[in-house]
Amino acid sequence: MIIFGIDPGLAISGYGIVNYAGNKFEIIEYGAVITSSFDEYPKRLKIIYDRYTELFEMYKPEAVAVEELFYNKNTKTAMAIAQSRGVHLLAAANKNIPLYEYTPLQIKQGTVGYGRAQKKQVQEMVRLILKLEQVPKPDDAADGLAAAICHAHSLKFAENFRIKY
Amino acid sequence: MIIFGIDPGLAISGYGIVNYAGNKFEIIEYGAVITSSFDEYPKRLKIIYDRYTELFEMYKPEAVAVEELFYNKNTKTAMAIAQSRGVHLLAAANKNIPLYEYTPLQIKQGTVGYGRAQKKQVQEMVRLILKLEQVPKPDDAADGLAAAICHAHSLKFAENFRIKY
Repeated sequence: MIIFGIDPGLAISGYGIVNYAGNKFEIIEYGAVITSSFDEYPKRLKIIYDRYTELFEMYKPEAVAVEELFYNKNTKTAMAIAQSRGVHLLAAANKNIPLYEYTPLQIKQGTVGYGRAQKKQVQEMVRLILKLEQVPKPDDAADGLAAAICHAHSLKFAENFRIKY
Repeated sequence: MIIFGIDPGLAISGYGIVNYAGNKFEIIEYGAVITSSFDEYPKRLKIIYDRYTELFEMYKPEAVAVEELFYNKNTKTAMAIAQSRGVHLLAAANKNIPLYEYTPLQIKQGTVGYGRAQKKQVQEMVRLILKLEQVPKPDDAADGLAAAICHAHSLKFAENFRIKY
């Protein structure tokens, strides 16, 4: 099954696409959607939405796994990022692709095997699982791939992670 | 000029459309987009997006004025609502309609004339300004109209309220 993982963001939103079949992973694509703070905010939302719509059309994933956002403060920036996350979800919803979300802790557990793993360990595990020569860059793309791997490893319990709210 | 005001929300999102010309207001339409918690969250985002896209196509507003959201806590619910607000903004961005945002305080100032006005006073002022027999219902629609009126009264300074972030 084709799984599309996303580490959502406004300035940089990382993604990774894998094929998971018979307990084996095959990497399909990874990358990041970058938007500039020189552009007005509504335009940045549109860039993110258009790009993910394009990617979903291109790769036709059967599941989209999105990292959950956490903030310490409820600042304007936090709101701006949450709003942009909504646009990621909408792009998948418009294609009727089931959406799942995982906390950073769950993603660490679902890749490295324990929730207190460090960022570098997650990236190294992503590299090993996908048999890559180097750790995928930027970090956000590696995080997108980690979300996809985490979802593959959670398939038995996936309904628990389905975005329903 | 046709101004489209929105009091964004997830369960209920109110809107009001006015024509403002020569310091006079004419009401065009108001209403609310309702989504049910029985529907999955991504579907609710899609309903909101589709409905606003439709309304923007129908009424071709020259400006969209959106009320700012405030939360005391950074809960999952607050995030869910912020994400849905992003979808409202995207619908306008996709139609290249300039977006403006006003705090509840600014909307009170821009309708009643002072920021500590009560909700009922705002609604009554909306009724008077638009020469309606009754206060528009639901409250969210009245709040959408208030945002539109506030924008009309702020036109000289509108650039300050343009959503740029």
